[in-house]
Amino acid sequence: MDQDVIIIGGGPAGLITGLAARRRRPEAKILVIKNIPDGVIPCGIPYMFTCLDDPAKNALGNEPLQKNGIGLLEAEAIAIDREKRTVTIADGTTHSYAKLVIATGSDPIVPPLPGRDKKGIYPIRKQLSYLTGLKEDLIRAKDVVVIGGGFIGIEFADELSCLEDARITIVEALPRVLARQFDDPFSDKAKAALESRGVTVRTGVQAERFEGDERVSTVVLSDGTSIPAQVVILGIGTRPNAKLALDAGLSKDRYGGIRVDEYQRSLDDPDIFAVGDCAAKRDALTGRPSGAWLASVATAEARIAGHNLVSIGLLRQNPGTVACYSTKIGETSLACAGLTAKGAEEAGFEVVIGEAESPDKHPGGLPGMKNISARLVFSKGSHRLLGGQLAGGDSVGEMVNILSLAIQKRTTAEELVTMMLATHPKLTPAPTTYPLVAAAEAALYAR
Amino acid sequence: MDQDVIIIGGGPAGLITGLAARRRRPEAKILVIKNIPDGVIPCGIPYMFTCLDDPAKNALGNEPLQKNGIGLLEAEAIAIDREKRTVTIADGTTHSYAKLVIATGSDPIVPPLPGRDKKGIYPIRKQLSYLTGLKEDLIRAKDVVVIGGGFIGIEFADELSCLEDARITIVEALPRVLARQFDDPFSDKAKAALESRGVTVRTGVQAERFEGDERVSTVVLSDGTSIPAQVVILGIGTRPNAKLALDAGLSKDRYGGIRVDEYQRSLDDPDIFAVGDCAAKRDALTGRPSGAWLASVATAEARIAGHNLVSIGLLRQNPGTVACYSTKIGETSLACAGLTAKGAEEAGFEVVIGEAESPDKHPGGLPGMKNISARLVFSKGSHRLLGGQLAGGDSVGEMVNILSLAIQKRTTAEELVTMMLATHPKLTPAPTTYPLVAAAEAALYAR
Repeated sequence: MDQDVIIIGGGPAGLITGLAARRRRPEAKILVIKNIPDGVIPCGIPYMFTCLDDPAKNALGNEPLQKNGIGLLEAEAIAIDREKRTVTIADGTTHSYAKLVIATGSDPIVPPLPGRDKKGIYPIRKQLSYLTGLKEDLIRAKDVVVIGGGFIGIEFADELSCLEDARITIVEALPRVLARQFDDPFSDKAKAALESRGVTVRTGVQAERFEGDERVSTVVLSDGTSIPAQVVILGIGTRPNAKLALDAGLSKDRYGGIRVDEYQRSLDDPDIFAVGDCAAKRDALTGRPSGAWLASVATAEARIAGHNLVSIGLLRQNPGTVACYSTKIGETSLACAGLTAKGAEEAGFEVVIGEAESPDKHPGGLPGMKNISARLVFSKGSHRLLGGQLAGGDSVGEMVNILSLAIQKRTTAEELVTMMLATHPKLTPAPTTYPLVAAAEAALYAR
Repeated sequence: MDQDVIIIGGGPAGLITGLAARRRRPEAKILVIKNIPDGVIPCGIPYMFTCLDDPAKNALGNEPLQKNGIGLLEAEAIAIDREKRTVTIADGTTHSYAKLVIATGSDPIVPPLPGRDKKGIYPIRKQLSYLTGLKEDLIRAKDVVVIGGGFIGIEFADELSCLEDARITIVEALPRVLARQFDDPFSDKAKAALESRGVTVRTGVQAERFEGDERVSTVVLSDGTSIPAQVVILGIGTRPNAKLALDAGLSKDRYGGIRVDEYQRSLDDPDIFAVGDCAAKRDALTGRPSGAWLASVATAEARIAGHNLVSIGLLRQNPGTVACYSTKIGETSLACAGLTAKGAEEAGFEVVIGEAESPDKHPGGLPGMKNISARLVFSKGSHRLLGGQLAGGDSVGEMVNILSLAIQKRTTAEELVTMMLATHPKLTPAPTTYPLVAAAEAALYAR
């Protein structure tokens, strides 16, 4: 059947592309083809085991598509014919498009370790039935090992620490957890928060093999020690799922993502767009390929594509990807945007750092007060904000987005110091000690 | 005694000017002259009665001055001699300055109504002893009337609604509470939140006189009705306290604030600066005089003055004042930045509005979820953000500062739609429904 727009993929990127395209083109025939009928909200996956009483509450439903008159085909797309402009699905039928959007996401990396196929070893897949199975396994487990101390790993560990009687261990090959997104002092805060939840954090050591009969019973590490485990969570990362596009002759970047222009159009075919984890990204600050496979980045890309499929209706002024993250471990929230100091230096920046700490309410004696720590990284010459890291209570979850915007809008330390803000005793730090302002001020006078 | 810098006023504006000047000039002799020995944190005043177990926890101490080697003189400055560059204090002694900063704040407006001098009627003064006296009176009161439905009035009413057995009534002359800072739907949310706390809200009616013997017993309103009251809080606004500066021949703006340039230097004397409520302000968007007498604005001005007293060390790129507010009534938080739709239209803008609503966690089934409502106001032609209003849980307290920065950095709807953000299930709305993005998107398609 002829479609104006076909979108392959039903995750957040595919969904938001469809909704934006519908908004722009009320009459267009739009079809979403997805091969996972029971998809879930990806960011919510770690919280499907104890926080949510029912994992099904994290389902990513089809109502938004139905309500907006977007067709849905639950099937596996197996080939794209760029000359005929058709997509072939598994049963052999074809669907023609005027514009095609590839939103096929990413796949979890499964390390090629001996024993990786044993029962009880779970890469994170975005499927409700699969994750419900994992939950059943977790409830019986006494020892859980999480391989990988990135966001997915620490969030799983935090969530599973609520399980009674279960011993949770994180194994991270780098010297610290969250080492790519935070400088050392903030990684250390994350580790302390995990330990206060009873999680064992092993860093600088790798999983070498999985032992056991049919089911895993032990993880053997590179230092020769081993950890008992009835369940192993693999949280070591993902890679773009771009096979369909590459088979059709589109080109990929260093990370394997489909190469696209400023408007998410593939560089090789003006009628094919790519959005989300399967699309290549360029870091806004370093200009280098970026591995920011995040739902928030995916949805921003989806809006750019959806509004610009036929002609450019939404002028893009944002020059690339700014990776912005937030997370919560126990009662400690951590968040970051842009580059760390070490990341900036690796990319060739000379940096100047400003740090500050402030109560998150004022006066500090108000009930429920927590301290916020801020670390801002500026380019030395221009004082332009390159990145920021925050730790504190829940409010850092939105405070970091002031930094996200500040980076995207090329804000300097001088501008942050004189920035006007809303403050309130129960909701924010005091205007006299507001941590983003105070950290920017410290950077101005740093040697 | 000769000083490099004299600062008159010990509130947040004076304090932060001193600290910034110290940072810039480690060797300078700096003196703060203040006439209120027991000052308090102004934003915390409404919370000194039940939230804080002891009002003294809201004291604004002198330790920051002492720790930074800044002199302190508790005395009333009564005259400035601009030719001799001296300040005279009440005992007749004089102190000479190279640079003088006036940070004398504002005074509460007391309406010239019959009976206004009776006991039990309290304009809001920023003095611990005075406010402790008010607390003693409040504890005994059965009926409290708050005159004025602006921020100070509604925050007092919210706080006092925790007092057992006390009936609280707000009297507001305009048709709605918070009518200058919010458009009608958000003012209505504030009213509903107050009513859910048991507060009676009377709008479109004014206090006409206060009756009683020595102490107030009744407030008589313009519609002929009357309300019993043993305590009356006057929260109808403040005016700049610029007498000292005007007596010295400095000029004032329409609101009575000392006229200053981009760097807070008075227009009439390059060696005298003014910061905070006593300094004139110009709205960044309308170019008109602004009445944003806020501690957050005051501290931003103080930093500009403090870093730039001798020479310009902190280049100001911010063209004026953006008024940003947040508040909390019961469990409902409300926040705004920049212009309302009606305010923008009054100032001559053609506007386009975008609205959105989203759960503040994702999936929405997570415990403690609240909905966030967002209303963004853009200039019709340029799509530049003019203002925004938010209502929801605590997280709007920092979310509004994304809007504060966006206004200051001249952000457009297109940029907000494609903005990259940090999101997390427990801390923020979903990236698919993030309310600032969704409201900006709605505005792009609004007719």
